[in-house]
Amino acid sequence: MTTPLIAPAGLKNVIVTDTELGDVRGEEGFFHYRGHDATLLARDVFFEDAWHLVLFGSLPTASEATAFGTRVGALRPLDGRTVDLLRATVGSGTEPMHALRVALAALGLGDRPLMDLPEDERIEAALRSAAVTPTILAAAHRLARGEEPAEADPAAGHAADYLRMATGNTDPADAAALQTYLVATIDHGINASTFAGRVIASTGSDMTSCLLGALGAFLGPLHGGAPSRALAALDEIGDPSRTREWVRGKIARDERIMGFGHAVYRTHDPRSELLKDVARRYDSPLVRQALQVEAEIETAINELKPGRRLYANVEYYAGVVMGEVGLPPSMFTPTFGVARVVGWTANVLEQVRQGKIIRPSARYVGPALQ
Amino acid sequence: MTTPLIAPAGLKNVIVTDTELGDVRGEEGFFHYRGHDATLLARDVFFEDAWHLVLFGSLPTASEATAFGTRVGALRPLDGRTVDLLRATVGSGTEPMHALRVALAALGLGDRPLMDLPEDERIEAALRSAAVTPTILAAAHRLARGEEPAEADPAAGHAADYLRMATGNTDPADAAALQTYLVATIDHGINASTFAGRVIASTGSDMTSCLLGALGAFLGPLHGGAPSRALAALDEIGDPSRTREWVRGKIARDERIMGFGHAVYRTHDPRSELLKDVARRYDSPLVRQALQVEAEIETAINELKPGRRLYANVEYYAGVVMGEVGLPPSMFTPTFGVARVVGWTANVLEQVRQGKIIRPSARYVGPALQ
Repeated sequence: MTTPLIAPAGLKNVIVTDTELGDVRGEEGFFHYRGHDATLLARDVFFEDAWHLVLFGSLPTASEATAFGTRVGALRPLDGRTVDLLRATVGSGTEPMHALRVALAALGLGDRPLMDLPEDERIEAALRSAAVTPTILAAAHRLARGEEPAEADPAAGHAADYLRMATGNTDPADAAALQTYLVATIDHGINASTFAGRVIASTGSDMTSCLLGALGAFLGPLHGGAPSRALAALDEIGDPSRTREWVRGKIARDERIMGFGHAVYRTHDPRSELLKDVARRYDSPLVRQALQVEAEIETAINELKPGRRLYANVEYYAGVVMGEVGLPPSMFTPTFGVARVVGWTANVLEQVRQGKIIRPSARYVGPALQ
Repeated sequence: MTTPLIAPAGLKNVIVTDTELGDVRGEEGFFHYRGHDATLLARDVFFEDAWHLVLFGSLPTASEATAFGTRVGALRPLDGRTVDLLRATVGSGTEPMHALRVALAALGLGDRPLMDLPEDERIEAALRSAAVTPTILAAAHRLARGEEPAEADPAAGHAADYLRMATGNTDPADAAALQTYLVATIDHGINASTFAGRVIASTGSDMTSCLLGALGAFLGPLHGGAPSRALAALDEIGDPSRTREWVRGKIARDERIMGFGHAVYRTHDPRSELLKDVARRYDSPLVRQALQVEAEIETAINELKPGRRLYANVEYYAGVVMGEVGLPPSMFTPTFGVARVVGWTANVLEQVRQGKIIRPSARYVGPALQ
């Protein structure tokens, strides 16, 4: 019998898989997709281009981009049966992410195990689930407000179509700002949701199973993605003149400030820097206050806790950007999900190809045998 | 920066958590729940008693057993809304486990994160999900055959009520046989489905999220639980007189025999021994053939591959027992799920209490930076 290895709590710093999808270099404040600097991509490319890159390993040529856009555009509309299901299940308080679970589960009736599918059908399952996610979330959001779902436009860009379906906003500059956010959040290492999806994929299971698991972890309060809470801090401050006092109080009392600090980055979160640039395009009270709060925190930390480092994370300016393009806080986490589902599907496909079940061990520490 | 630890593939023999729920001792062919020999329990106690033990850490006193039986019995019936949902989604080819995903997701609309709930509400969420699972699976099974769902009887025992709802069988001896199987399969270490549930729970997420993830892994062909395939081997043999030739052919060609071999047990699977005893109560052609096949395999292995060990696993006699009590092969995996959902909920509650997110790392092995 092999002597078991006792892993550090939370598997922190434990490498559980090799990946060709990308890397997060926490010390450098840098991450990439398939060898392409992710924040540079986010400034430059369409969501569909980054999607193609993450899934297939290369940025599309012009003709590939057209074909891929057509393909995923055609998968974006919801069938009538799923719309009916959403109508029957979404109530006024329903969280869009909970409605997404129901709709994906219903679309997954009859899903076959990925390990039993040829590669092209695996990819079709990945594209289908990721393509329809924004449509489901936007429909659930509208139904929860008593509004009719908007139909997807297969000819539109993924980011722009999502923004229109969710909010009615058709401003191209806003769609571009949102697209930058979406590209920058497609993938980010083996966080808990991605790992959950990979554990499920390691059994050879179906795409719906993997995504429901990833989504489930994504909904956990300890998971990184809760951009709605970052704006809550700005709400709590209220009058910007109170910012300095509020920040200093928080830091003096060692209280956590939502939107600041990250499990991996020990320097500036590159996504935060990127989204700060996007936010600056909007000369609004919200943006001015967000910039002021960040600066106050930096100053106060230097003064009150010298040597400590505390930087804005992706949630902080993500919340600001999403607010500026017209998404309400209840749609911040779902919007994060619109991007991340692409990363999950790519991780799932990679894991299934590895063909090895993830089956760790536990150490019994309970009462002796009765 | 801490040097990362490269874990063995599939996290094999890596201890990812401490647990008080039980232990699987593969070398000894022994496993227990909370310090109680699981196969002894399976011969002796009601499913509800084992459920109480696994969830709360002790076998119930007589008055606790009555109260617990009443509590979970009251949670077993399906509400009309969920029955309507199943009617709308289950078609003739629908797998009951896929219908379970839809129903659990719908029942989970509005679920709150477990980490935000007090202990009694966490337990309520655990009991609610596990109690209603057999009712959903039985209803989905009946609807898929064009039959009306049977209503749960809160006053009945869990195992007996499930058997009646699924098959119409009310024979107490059959219910007892099934109950033995169910008690013996409540929990079995940190297999992939349990681990998936725990990864999701580590984020503090809701019970539905954790169970959908565990279920998803459970559906993977590489996950242990596929008792329907074990009976398929008996079907393939057909005439029992061909058994010897079939077995020797398989072993000579080094082909896998479904229902034999296990990732953890290096000796007899204690669940298989238990279920063989249960199967022997039925003096049927199926049981006689199953016993003959097992004996032939043992003989052939000793002769053709001396030193190699290959024992019947839980799937093998589980399939036989489920067949004898009237469950069709399409309900074998769902029936396994009726038991295992109790183990998943207990693992989820334990993981949430630990309060530490599971977030491992990956090693990038793709192309160099562009």
